[in-house]
Amino acid sequence: MKHDAIYAGTFDPMTYGHLDVIERASLIFDRLIVAIAISTPKTPLFSAEERAAMTRDVVEDMDNVEVDIFDGLLVDYARAKGIHVLVRGLRAFSDFEFEFQMALTNRKLAPDMETLFLMPKEDYSYFGSNTVREVAELGGRIDCFVPSPVRAALQEKISKGSLEST
Amino acid sequence: MKHDAIYAGTFDPMTYGHLDVIERASLIFDRLIVAIAISTPKTPLFSAEERAAMTRDVVEDMDNVEVDIFDGLLVDYARAKGIHVLVRGLRAFSDFEFEFQMALTNRKLAPDMETLFLMPKEDYSYFGSNTVREVAELGGRIDCFVPSPVRAALQEKISKGSLEST
Amino acid sequence: MKHDAIYAGTFDPMTYGHLDVIERASLIFDRLIVAIAISTPKTPLFSAEERAAMTRDVVEDMDNVEVDIFDGLLVDYARAKGIHVLVRGLRAFSDFEFEFQMALTNRKLAPDMETLFLMPKEDYSYFGSNTVREVAELGGRIDCFVPSPVRAALQEKISKGSLEST
Amino acid sequence: MKHDAIYAGTFDPMTYGHLDVIERASLIFDRLIVAIAISTPKTPLFSAEERAAMTRDVVEDMDNVEVDIFDGLLVDYARAKGIHVLVRGLRAFSDFEFEFQMALTNRKLAPDMETLFLMPKEDYSYFGSNTVREVAELGGRIDCFVPSPVRAALQEKISKGSLEST
Amino acid sequence: MKHDAIYAGTFDPMTYGHLDVIERASLIFDRLIVAIAISTPKTPLFSAEERAAMTRDVVEDMDNVEVDIFDGLLVDYARAKGIHVLVRGLRAFSDFEFEFQMALTNRKLAPDMETLFLMPKEDYSYFGSNTVREVAELGGRIDCFVPSPVRAALQEKISKGSLEST
Amino acid sequence: MKHDAIYAGTFDPMTYGHLDVIERASLIFDRLIVAIAISTPKTPLFSAEERAAMTRDVVEDMDNVEVDIFDGLLVDYARAKGIHVLVRGLRAFSDFEFEFQMALTNRKLAPDMETLFLMPKEDYSYFGSNTVREVAELGGRIDCFVPSPVRAALQEKISKGSLEST
Repeated sequence: MKHDAIYAGTFDPMTYGHLDVIERASLIFDRLIVAIAISTPKTPLFSAEERAAMTRDVVEDMDNVEVDIFDGLLVDYARAKGIHVLVRGLRAFSDFEFEFQMALTNRKLAPDMETLFLMPKEDYSYFGSNTVREVAELGGRIDCFVPSPVRAALQEKISKGSLEST
Repeated sequence: MKHDAIYAGTFDPMTYGHLDVIERASLIFDRLIVAIAISTPKTPLFSAEERAAMTRDVVEDMDNVEVDIFDGLLVDYARAKGIHVLVRGLRAFSDFEFEFQMALTNRKLAPDMETLFLMPKEDYSYFGSNTVREVAELGGRIDCFVPSPVRAALQEKISKGSLEST
Repeated sequence: MKHDAIYAGTFDPMTYGHLDVIERASLIFDRLIVAIAISTPKTPLFSAEERAAMTRDVVEDMDNVEVDIFDGLLVDYARAKGIHVLVRGLRAFSDFEFEFQMALTNRKLAPDMETLFLMPKEDYSYFGSNTVREVAELGGRIDCFVPSPVRAALQEKISKGSLEST
Repeated sequence: MKHDAIYAGTFDPMTYGHLDVIERASLIFDRLIVAIAISTPKTPLFSAEERAAMTRDVVEDMDNVEVDIFDGLLVDYARAKGIHVLVRGLRAFSDFEFEFQMALTNRKLAPDMETLFLMPKEDYSYFGSNTVREVAELGGRIDCFVPSPVRAALQEKISKGSLEST
Repeated sequence: MKHDAIYAGTFDPMTYGHLDVIERASLIFDRLIVAIAISTPKTPLFSAEERAAMTRDVVEDMDNVEVDIFDGLLVDYARAKGIHVLVRGLRAFSDFEFEFQMALTNRKLAPDMETLFLMPKEDYSYFGSNTVREVAELGGRIDCFVPSPVRAALQEKISKGSLEST
Repeated sequence: MKHDAIYAGTFDPMTYGHLDVIERASLIFDRLIVAIAISTPKTPLFSAEERAAMTRDVVEDMDNVEVDIFDGLLVDYARAKGIHVLVRGLRAFSDFEFEFQMALTNRKLAPDMETLFLMPKEDYSYFGSNTVREVAELGGRIDCFVPSPVRAALQEKISKGSLEST
């Protein structure tokens, strides 16, 4: 039995909550692919390449974690990789129903695909990438929400955005 | 006592979940109007006429089901039709609070209007029109989510959209 | 098509919330049976006969409402009556999941049985029979929770209980 | 100990639900600042000045209530005012998780800031500013949702918008 | 305006979650009464006096916090004390609906009574007195759940219980 | 890295929902221990030995699944087995908060223990052992809820119980 898993998402940007899920999953599976979606419901703040670069920066010390970019349906990507375990973090707030819908839709599209849910640390369970972008845009400190490479990239992106919109 | 009911929505596009509610309601009421809203919160993928045509296609064998288009407040439309029962499907996921808010708002606007909730089959309870559009746009199979006339229309619309955006 | 429905429950005791559902359902269906369950998960405060008598008292002016007692599975009772619509009130708080489970279980046991959910008035949506019994036992006023025949019966039952336990 | 509090939000427009929270909070605290956010996730219908003017109109008889406008992070505004109690209304529907996330994020950004939640009257617990705007746009009556100065402003804004979009 | 509040509950036994709410409330109000209910839905592990003693032990350094015991309806107790603010902790998990029901019932019984909800620290938001008792009974460590005087009392009570049940 | 997991519970009795989780987990892990708790919050219908026997019957064809009985804290049992992955099924209804509380409590007691959540098939997501016992006691058919060895045992147990209580 192969013990590989995929942790897919938008990661716009990656937060400590994502990182916590990656660390936990990397202790359970032999190999974990962090798969960054190109197509996102809303226009992302960072390009897929930028999001992948930031994520690589953060996970570079974890030997069994790879970062990749994918387009199209996640289940097609997973099948092409020969992986049938999808990992998701289940935040205490608001994720449950959305995650369930997505997991059941994925199972319908690919019955052999199994979604496993992990709980991130409580400290990381109430905020997502949206919160982080909003706090950053309103000038708040984001050190407690994102790893430092992300913070630098986010602050650069936002100060540029402010200049451009002038 | 008259036993007529209205099942209103956006139906952009109609799914097997909607169809399941229509079938169940058509067995309980003498006459069921499927009422398609022209004004929708977001720009719909299909025009109201297209949505009505697809729906008519799908329900043509149900004798006591009619398809209609309406504009403005649902409660005003219902009152004009002399109908005071509104039917809603209550999906296991995520609908509950939204449906409750809408039903209570409708009751405030028209106290004689009663909203009845039906449960669709579990198999149809986790996806909505949004999911279907997303899966279709990412190139996934949608046969398990929508009846075949809808599938055809959706695939045509999406391939056209892709050409146009080129 | 026959338009009869059953509203089943423990009614230990009946509250204004139950009464509100009965009134609403009696305007939609030709005939409504309020079916009182003999077997209840916990020992009820009132016997099934007492619960039926109180309920009859309260609904006596509604011509199309009958009160009955049943034992065993609700779906068996409904089938024996030739009725395939079950009505339930869906209180804003805490009922949703329990109601859904029960409705899906009933559908599994009797696929032709349909459960319709009604929303009681907001004022009646946050308390149930439990709350009423607890408030009465702690000596609080219960006029705003139950119709007057129920209040009288509840106060008699509780003062007796207090004497007995002395 | 100082007993001042801030009730912040978008108030686009103020509803009876907001007013109910303001009245309740004004009975508990010595001084309540209703703080209107300039930056909102979506483009507001009313400018911050218009929202403040409507709110002032409505609360003018409450001696210990002030209306103000703020920009940036709420916790920075509160700190500048020397206030460490934030008041929020907790509607029965849909607010809970969002409010919790926001409160925990604010606590992370400013550990000395405490969020207190109040329950508005049940009658006001199922609709928000969004509902009010939608009903008004579809031509429905909004007297039961907003105080009269807001109704006048909303109807003027919408009829203008309709003319403009002609 | 008087700024007193009551924090009522069963406290069987007091946990770090309760203590966190007490500390937060004691910073907002001039005087906080921790009111321990004699009558509880289930037979408590500790008598009301034992629960009060443990709680007094834990809060003895907080000058504006008093511990008291009450019987009957909380709103009657509060009225007798001339206090109209009730404080409740709102744990992220599972409390929401129960708390709302109780607060609305209390408001119905005493319209001038206001319930204010506070969020305990995330670390304390997922366990309650039940969890603590269960873990202790199964022989687990409870230092991370309860203050040390409670731990001692709980372990004594349980070892006694074990002897008695032998 | 070892890929073993424990699926613990009361299994009073085992349902198709449990079996579905076992099957899914057995495809992901090298070895799965189904661990049956001796101590349960309520007196179980079946003894731990009976529950284990029924479960063994049902899983006997799955080579990498073992059935065991444990007492005390689950995390202590897992540690003694050298396993740090706990598997749980997450039913769409009502489990979420309870499961989260338990998982966070277990993590507090044993930080190296990880809980992974799996979604059972939708068909199995709305009923639990309680429902099955109730339906059986009311004389309903339970073939769609439990595997046949469980059905036989349950019917024997209940008919005996009925005789005894005569």
